[in-house]
Amino acid sequence: MSTVGQAQGTGELRIAVLGVGMMGAFHAEALSSRIRGARVTVVSDFFDALAEEIATRIGARVESDPIAAIRAEDVDAVLIATPGKAHDEQVNACLDARIPVLCEKPLTTDIASSRAIVEKESRLDRPLVQVGFMRRFDPEYVALKKLITDGGLGNPLVVHCTHRNLAVPESFNSEFMIRDSVVHEVDVSRFLLDEEIISVQVIKGVATGAAPAGVSDPMIVVFETASGRIVTDEIYVRTGVGYEVRTEVVGERGSATIGLDQNLVVKSGDGRWGGAVTPGFVERFGVAYDIELQRWVDAARRGTIDGPGAWDGYAAVAVCEAGVEAVRTGQKVAVDLGPSVTAGVATAGITAPDLEAAT
Amino acid sequence: MSTVGQAQGTGELRIAVLGVGMMGAFHAEALSSRIRGARVTVVSDFFDALAEEIATRIGARVESDPIAAIRAEDVDAVLIATPGKAHDEQVNACLDARIPVLCEKPLTTDIASSRAIVEKESRLDRPLVQVGFMRRFDPEYVALKKLITDGGLGNPLVVHCTHRNLAVPESFNSEFMIRDSVVHEVDVSRFLLDEEIISVQVIKGVATGAAPAGVSDPMIVVFETASGRIVTDEIYVRTGVGYEVRTEVVGERGSATIGLDQNLVVKSGDGRWGGAVTPGFVERFGVAYDIELQRWVDAARRGTIDGPGAWDGYAAVAVCEAGVEAVRTGQKVAVDLGPSVTAGVATAGITAPDLEAAT
Amino acid sequence: MSTVGQAQGTGELRIAVLGVGMMGAFHAEALSSRIRGARVTVVSDFFDALAEEIATRIGARVESDPIAAIRAEDVDAVLIATPGKAHDEQVNACLDARIPVLCEKPLTTDIASSRAIVEKESRLDRPLVQVGFMRRFDPEYVALKKLITDGGLGNPLVVHCTHRNLAVPESFNSEFMIRDSVVHEVDVSRFLLDEEIISVQVIKGVATGAAPAGVSDPMIVVFETASGRIVTDEIYVRTGVGYEVRTEVVGERGSATIGLDQNLVVKSGDGRWGGAVTPGFVERFGVAYDIELQRWVDAARRGTIDGPGAWDGYAAVAVCEAGVEAVRTGQKVAVDLGPSVTAGVATAGITAPDLEAAT
Amino acid sequence: MSTVGQAQGTGELRIAVLGVGMMGAFHAEALSSRIRGARVTVVSDFFDALAEEIATRIGARVESDPIAAIRAEDVDAVLIATPGKAHDEQVNACLDARIPVLCEKPLTTDIASSRAIVEKESRLDRPLVQVGFMRRFDPEYVALKKLITDGGLGNPLVVHCTHRNLAVPESFNSEFMIRDSVVHEVDVSRFLLDEEIISVQVIKGVATGAAPAGVSDPMIVVFETASGRIVTDEIYVRTGVGYEVRTEVVGERGSATIGLDQNLVVKSGDGRWGGAVTPGFVERFGVAYDIELQRWVDAARRGTIDGPGAWDGYAAVAVCEAGVEAVRTGQKVAVDLGPSVTAGVATAGITAPDLEAAT
Repeated sequence: MSTVGQAQGTGELRIAVLGVGMMGAFHAEALSSRIRGARVTVVSDFFDALAEEIATRIGARVESDPIAAIRAEDVDAVLIATPGKAHDEQVNACLDARIPVLCEKPLTTDIASSRAIVEKESRLDRPLVQVGFMRRFDPEYVALKKLITDGGLGNPLVVHCTHRNLAVPESFNSEFMIRDSVVHEVDVSRFLLDEEIISVQVIKGVATGAAPAGVSDPMIVVFETASGRIVTDEIYVRTGVGYEVRTEVVGERGSATIGLDQNLVVKSGDGRWGGAVTPGFVERFGVAYDIELQRWVDAARRGTIDGPGAWDGYAAVAVCEAGVEAVRTGQKVAVDLGPSVTAGVATAGITAPDLEAAT
Repeated sequence: MSTVGQAQGTGELRIAVLGVGMMGAFHAEALSSRIRGARVTVVSDFFDALAEEIATRIGARVESDPIAAIRAEDVDAVLIATPGKAHDEQVNACLDARIPVLCEKPLTTDIASSRAIVEKESRLDRPLVQVGFMRRFDPEYVALKKLITDGGLGNPLVVHCTHRNLAVPESFNSEFMIRDSVVHEVDVSRFLLDEEIISVQVIKGVATGAAPAGVSDPMIVVFETASGRIVTDEIYVRTGVGYEVRTEVVGERGSATIGLDQNLVVKSGDGRWGGAVTPGFVERFGVAYDIELQRWVDAARRGTIDGPGAWDGYAAVAVCEAGVEAVRTGQKVAVDLGPSVTAGVATAGITAPDLEAAT
Repeated sequence: MSTVGQAQGTGELRIAVLGVGMMGAFHAEALSSRIRGARVTVVSDFFDALAEEIATRIGARVESDPIAAIRAEDVDAVLIATPGKAHDEQVNACLDARIPVLCEKPLTTDIASSRAIVEKESRLDRPLVQVGFMRRFDPEYVALKKLITDGGLGNPLVVHCTHRNLAVPESFNSEFMIRDSVVHEVDVSRFLLDEEIISVQVIKGVATGAAPAGVSDPMIVVFETASGRIVTDEIYVRTGVGYEVRTEVVGERGSATIGLDQNLVVKSGDGRWGGAVTPGFVERFGVAYDIELQRWVDAARRGTIDGPGAWDGYAAVAVCEAGVEAVRTGQKVAVDLGPSVTAGVATAGITAPDLEAAT
Repeated sequence: MSTVGQAQGTGELRIAVLGVGMMGAFHAEALSSRIRGARVTVVSDFFDALAEEIATRIGARVESDPIAAIRAEDVDAVLIATPGKAHDEQVNACLDARIPVLCEKPLTTDIASSRAIVEKESRLDRPLVQVGFMRRFDPEYVALKKLITDGGLGNPLVVHCTHRNLAVPESFNSEFMIRDSVVHEVDVSRFLLDEEIISVQVIKGVATGAAPAGVSDPMIVVFETASGRIVTDEIYVRTGVGYEVRTEVVGERGSATIGLDQNLVVKSGDGRWGGAVTPGFVERFGVAYDIELQRWVDAARRGTIDGPGAWDGYAAVAVCEAGVEAVRTGQKVAVDLGPSVTAGVATAGITAPDLEAAT
């Protein structure tokens, strides 16, 4: 590994993305448009044509051999989104190269190789491996974790998880449901409760007609933690409805639920249910401000604007002026904007950002 | 204006931020950490010490004279967050310099000067002025606009707005409430209904005891649009509760509300109320993925990780392995992680991201 | 008027129902099935055939002349559900007969006659006239009133009302919308704020295409109260969606809303939104217990049961016995109910109450 | 058993209430005030003084011996709310007397005696025994059952139940939690799924500090039904929060939840979540109408009114008259009620029903 970004003098982290199927392509796009301080320099995939397509779109080069990509001069860090069975060799190559790696779950596909990575890394002087359990970064999970840590629920006794998908491929069998879906609840449980899981039980029932023969979908999974807490998880991946991920933590002094499309909802010992009123505009519109800025920056670099223009500002001033007079007089006050200004530019009339892009 | 970012060869938009009070500092921070493709090169403020503090933090230089900042060689675009009375001169200077400007509301403080800017810009060959009505970028407003545009509510007949703040400074009088708060609903109404406002009426009632003498807080503002639609707006800025911005659009074939902490809630002609189930993980966890990536990139540049580590990956593999056996056997299966690996690194045990930073 | 129920010696209130259109028939049915201590003895309607049909169903007699019904020997009290223009004469006849009357709104159709009734009643020694503003008895309005009275919102400053209907007859014009729908919000405002209304303003906008020509639907009505509080009311009676009656009271120290299908939802000065967790089973299932009892009583009088039977009780005992063993052993315990008992009676298997009737 | 109510000629069902602890007293009060067609004639309790107190309040007589009460001449039906161990003898006495009985759960305290009752009743020509599973009469459970029966969820695969109490007596141990609380979910599961439970498993974890030593609170109970469906039930009776009873049914084509204080909330295959908008005023205010009528009847029998009076009717007429003029003129119209009428009666000013009573 070279010094970070040294070839460019920009300090940007130069990243190789290994595997550009759905997740890898999603990450490559983010690293190329929304994430600051990073740049994808190398793309690798089992299918070269796919790698080529992504690389072209984001201005990176293709390296067919993932190990060569890890060892490349223009790579400071690696994002692994290849199939699980490739992870062991690739993560080890990153450790050998002393290069940071963000590895999508699973770390590897068996216990021994995962433990070997833990032990190999423990002999280094810094952590290099991060695993892609992204829920730890979701604002709702973060709020729930904070509530627990702050003691807002007392001792957390039971965790109920629900994980439902709209639909999955035929190949998604019961074993795969554990490895690919329940694995998230494994990490969420460990994250929220801050302790290890010591046993697992799976309860199978009637399967949905949408499941292939022999596949138990849904299933109820029950974890027991080191201190004896219970975690239940309903895993149901062919609901035909949508993506529902809910977590309820039931504690000694209250319970809290996320995933209700209502942020964190708490039931507490004062007999109330509900949540927090947003305290201010930063919490409410912080994301909107960032989107506004990012799109303005992108538009300015293209030589245009992408949002409300001068006419919108003028109209607002005119209406507010009338509003101020209405406050003073108590009367209905007319607003006259005069002739609209349309000569040659896009700013007259009401300027909408590109809705599709913003969604 | 120089060619965008030409001095650096990086293509980044070099931005001068004028005014670094609360909003300006907030934007400057975003442009320096979360927004890609931009860099704040110059900071200007009436208070040099404040400008100095922000500039130091984000690696920019200070320019006392805002007009000089606009004209500087290392400035490609300008973000104006100065007090409203300074906007006229500064926006005009940006137009004169043919440089893009994002101007916080109000565009200017009187109708004539705002109209003059519209007309001056109309004689140029491209739009340069964007006004900071950030709600047009808020995902809920975007979804509501899309619902209207797609005809989901039929003809929108009435819009009800609520704008409440926790508290405001003593100086926030009734006139200021119109200019600073109601102005957002002016733009929201124009944005959602796609037409101009032609009259304003203000209804004053009993004021909260928290309001200074002579200040009408709350007030009910009523707009009439060109086609005769009605917009009501409750503006109440000393609620003591929090920040509540709600908008309900009542149409010929249903109604929809945002700002309920429930995304977009629709009541429609099939007699149902509710919203859309999140279709997939990108919609649910897209933001979490971006936070994960940004923090991993930032951590990698500092030589560490900032999220679940190798041990977390190992523990998940071990629990899932037991889970797969539990699926097969129908029995409770124990998980044994063996001795924890703690030698010298942070990855043994459950690795939490920095919660405060993530919030 | 005779002594209450004297002819029967039962103490039941013998009621004449005047007008058995939709509301009158609804009330007559309630007085004959769910309301204790009363009996409809006389039914009167402009259409004798309709009176006959209802009277037959509930075991009453028909009296064509409403005034004769009021004066009848077998009538202790009168419920008036005739058209508004008939109310003046009928209420006055009740006052003359010194007989209690529950009069559906409006009391009368003009101010002078209503005031005359007030003054005539004031010369009696007891109140006889009650007006059918039933919202004062709705548990949500009662809870909202209590919250205000207890000071939970501080001084109530603004009330926002929404009154929407699915559809109304063609004849429901703007004037009728005031007299028939807004009248409820008139009473709700007076009830909640405990003061009189001193002015009314109506704001008309674009009408829904579902409204007949010349009818303003929706309208925004604004009331001002004696102490200067503001009430806004959106009245929209052809929504095509359903029946929505919402009331939000905005006070000095919080706000509260009813009509959200969530009981009373409060936003308060501690920065929280939400409601009260049901404290116990009586609050949660009190209505269910009463329905259970009423239906058991009705069934017993018919010589049967109407709810879970002996088999349901047996099955529950058997499952709980297994559950207790499961608690003790930690094992899965099988339940064996033995052969089902079906000889000649309805109680084997799972006995469902009549769902339609219960809805 | 005598002919129903023959001694009185009123046709009322004459009921003996056995056991007037909390549940029995609650039922006795309902049968004496809100339930039509019934009258409590006899009260019996292990504690004569308690029986005396209740009997005096509701106008019944006391019979110390419950079996004598069952056999009494003035008793047509029996409500059993004694401790469970007394049920066997008392229910059998009712069967012997050919008299209908509503027995609070449990039917009896062991399987054999419950089955014996089922078999004894099967030899009669009509059902006599109803068991007090009142949830089958709760409008939310009824709506959920109807949704399932109508096929709205497809095949129901999994049922998740939550049963939480604020607090319970010290004596409420793990076994009691099964017999007294989980028993409701036993019946709910059978009712909703329309099939028998064939196995039970109980998962114990860390107990709340509020539980006595040795009591597992909370517990997770798992039922398996005859067709292989899974029911999970969290039973937690010392939450310190309140009474929460939730049921979620997860089907092949959607899921539905009750107990959220939002009526029935459904997630369905069209990707929407939500509920039904109330179609009309009967559904929204039906209960309020009944409360209004019952209180008016009760008040009329006492010689007064209990609700909005003539002044309220007059004020509404006056405001609506102004409203109609406001519609016509587009102006703000003043309302003048003239001097208030206070001479000697309660109807001037705003007349509130007794809030406590209405709650």
